[in-house]
Amino acid sequence: MSVGLSEPAKLIPVKGVKLAVGHAGIKKNSVKNDLVLFELCEQATVAAVFTTNKFCAAPVIIARRHLEKNNSVRYLLVNSGNANAGTGEQGLQSALSTCQAVASEANMAETSVLPFSTGVIGAQLPHKKINVVIPSLFQQLKEDNWLAAAKGIMTTDTMPKAVSRRLTLDGKVVTITGICKGSGMIKPDMATMLGYVATDAVISSQELSVCLKQAADASFNCITVDGDTSTNDACILIATGNSGVQVDQSNTEFMQTLFDVFQQLAQSIIRDGEGATKFVTIQVDQAASLTDARELAYTIAHSPLVKTALFASDANWGRILAAIGRAPISSLEIDRVDLFLGDVCLIQKGLPHPEYTEQKGQSVMQEQDITIRVNLNLGSASTTIWTTDLSYDYVKINAEYRS
Amino acid sequence: MSVGLSEPAKLIPVKGVKLAVGHAGIKKNSVKNDLVLFELCEQATVAAVFTTNKFCAAPVIIARRHLEKNNSVRYLLVNSGNANAGTGEQGLQSALSTCQAVASEANMAETSVLPFSTGVIGAQLPHKKINVVIPSLFQQLKEDNWLAAAKGIMTTDTMPKAVSRRLTLDGKVVTITGICKGSGMIKPDMATMLGYVATDAVISSQELSVCLKQAADASFNCITVDGDTSTNDACILIATGNSGVQVDQSNTEFMQTLFDVFQQLAQSIIRDGEGATKFVTIQVDQAASLTDARELAYTIAHSPLVKTALFASDANWGRILAAIGRAPISSLEIDRVDLFLGDVCLIQKGLPHPEYTEQKGQSVMQEQDITIRVNLNLGSASTTIWTTDLSYDYVKINAEYRS
Repeated sequence: MSVGLSEPAKLIPVKGVKLAVGHAGIKKNSVKNDLVLFELCEQATVAAVFTTNKFCAAPVIIARRHLEKNNSVRYLLVNSGNANAGTGEQGLQSALSTCQAVASEANMAETSVLPFSTGVIGAQLPHKKINVVIPSLFQQLKEDNWLAAAKGIMTTDTMPKAVSRRLTLDGKVVTITGICKGSGMIKPDMATMLGYVATDAVISSQELSVCLKQAADASFNCITVDGDTSTNDACILIATGNSGVQVDQSNTEFMQTLFDVFQQLAQSIIRDGEGATKFVTIQVDQAASLTDARELAYTIAHSPLVKTALFASDANWGRILAAIGRAPISSLEIDRVDLFLGDVCLIQKGLPHPEYTEQKGQSVMQEQDITIRVNLNLGSASTTIWTTDLSYDYVKINAEYRS
Repeated sequence: MSVGLSEPAKLIPVKGVKLAVGHAGIKKNSVKNDLVLFELCEQATVAAVFTTNKFCAAPVIIARRHLEKNNSVRYLLVNSGNANAGTGEQGLQSALSTCQAVASEANMAETSVLPFSTGVIGAQLPHKKINVVIPSLFQQLKEDNWLAAAKGIMTTDTMPKAVSRRLTLDGKVVTITGICKGSGMIKPDMATMLGYVATDAVISSQELSVCLKQAADASFNCITVDGDTSTNDACILIATGNSGVQVDQSNTEFMQTLFDVFQQLAQSIIRDGEGATKFVTIQVDQAASLTDARELAYTIAHSPLVKTALFASDANWGRILAAIGRAPISSLEIDRVDLFLGDVCLIQKGLPHPEYTEQKGQSVMQEQDITIRVNLNLGSASTTIWTTDLSYDYVKINAEYRS
């Protein structure tokens, strides 16, 4: 089940990126595709952000290493069904072996290949099964393969996640297309979020890192299902340069479209969140600092009591107030706090709004998409994050997965 | 349902403390007692700790104020059924009015009375219903009334929580008896944890604050159900002095017994936690600092993925490892981490233990009481906290409460 999520609309290929999808049988008894290969044109630049989890997976370690050693990445190899995490030295060797298989087929250095894995933690990667399929992937590389790739990287996602946008700059069309997967910060013991976005704009390697950082901060770093950060999270931004349009992070029009693509992808992960029945936007305004705004937003987003009230469509403002009151920020002044559910004011200057009625609150809570807005009336910082409710199905999905 | 919790054994009165229990009908259609009055002897000293939630309730504000103004507290008045939180100026007046009613009956200053409330947030306290019952409470004050008091302060607790201990010091018997209530950090929108512990030892007011701080830090500050901190939490330690035995925080034997009482009470809250099917001890050893140890322990304790695995009796070490890896501590070195479930080693120096089998892990997870132990092998700090699993019933209790 997902909250207002549908099959992606038609995806626009990005000149300079070819994709192939295959089946290595990584997960037993599964017929679904579990292998995706990206081939990037020679002049493409690539930027990456990885999980901050200190127990990061073998492919994350190898991908970081290859990015340091080689500024010309030409292939991304992604497998689903196995996270290659908690696998020690053997896991590193397996990840490296798949890079070597791709590099050998392409006749390049292994550092031109970045590996990515998503799936079960703690099982060794069946790298031989993967390597045997790689030659056939090279036969199938084509530009119009994004939807198949979005499906190929899914684990327990119920829906593929992808989006395309076009904009015109200097009279030329620039395309941005991206796919991602993820359905909790970690699925049961799935190591989760992967995102790949490509544009045909011309962007220098250094500029691309800044664009990626900003876009990820405004999207994938603003979502939470349960506060758990996966060992395998990675997000990649590719600029092939084929449109001939040069941009950098000062190009507002490009950056807005890039943010839009990233936010659509990030929100689709929340809409497909584990057991989600609500898509919840938490907005904190007029905070003393961005750090305070984010701490407060996440305290509300992670409160099991707020999340279960959302599941119950119950306008239980006492729980939101209690979460605000315990947030680890020093700047809070309770008699300045305004709290809104949608457009309905629940709390004004720290006290129940005189015109608030249970009925008004309930009418907002019945919706699938709900906005909780807190105005701290202290400063000028604001933030918006997206989360889900906490349902029976969240417990069911996470309790029954291995039993 | 509770995890291995039974009715309290016989409670030993504490000379110098009398208790009365009554019914004010604060919660509609409830016949259970909802009012408890403590009377303390003249020379009794009293120490208190209150919630750190910035949206604290009216009685917390009044109790703090009275403690500042008056170092001779003689009465504690506790009501269940209404938290008097989120009630603004009117709530403060209501709390004050109940203190005045007690003070007037006792012919004392209102600052001799501390008010406490627990129950629904956001409804005005029906102080008139309370005040009319107060004279009759004075008729019923008696020393042997602790169990009735433990029942009178319950809200959605399924079991009264109380414990008595005796020790002999200088050839004289010293008694410590305490009661508490609470079943989540916040019950649905119940404002939750209250604790009252009395001893007949002689302890100066200043010493008593230190004893309370230390005992609370080793008990009520080491438990978590869902990370939510109530607006009404309070814990009170009373020393009546009637045993004639003088103690302070340097008396190891007394402090150990005090800690024991506090820990039994705190653990009984966890055992009666919302939807709890497991009593979980999380122990972090050899951390670089106590702060790191506690941050790590709470990150594990609050991880919904760890909690649902506990509910499923699933030895899903990938989730515990991922929680350790994302804990906000800088000192972690993953290749030093050892992880144990009970006596079974899952992870040794950051990697799966070669002799670990799924069966060994499952046999520990089948138990009701489970210990997760992490050894960071970095320093000498350790901590122990107690928590519950996350079950369907947690969601049910918190989602269905008001609907």
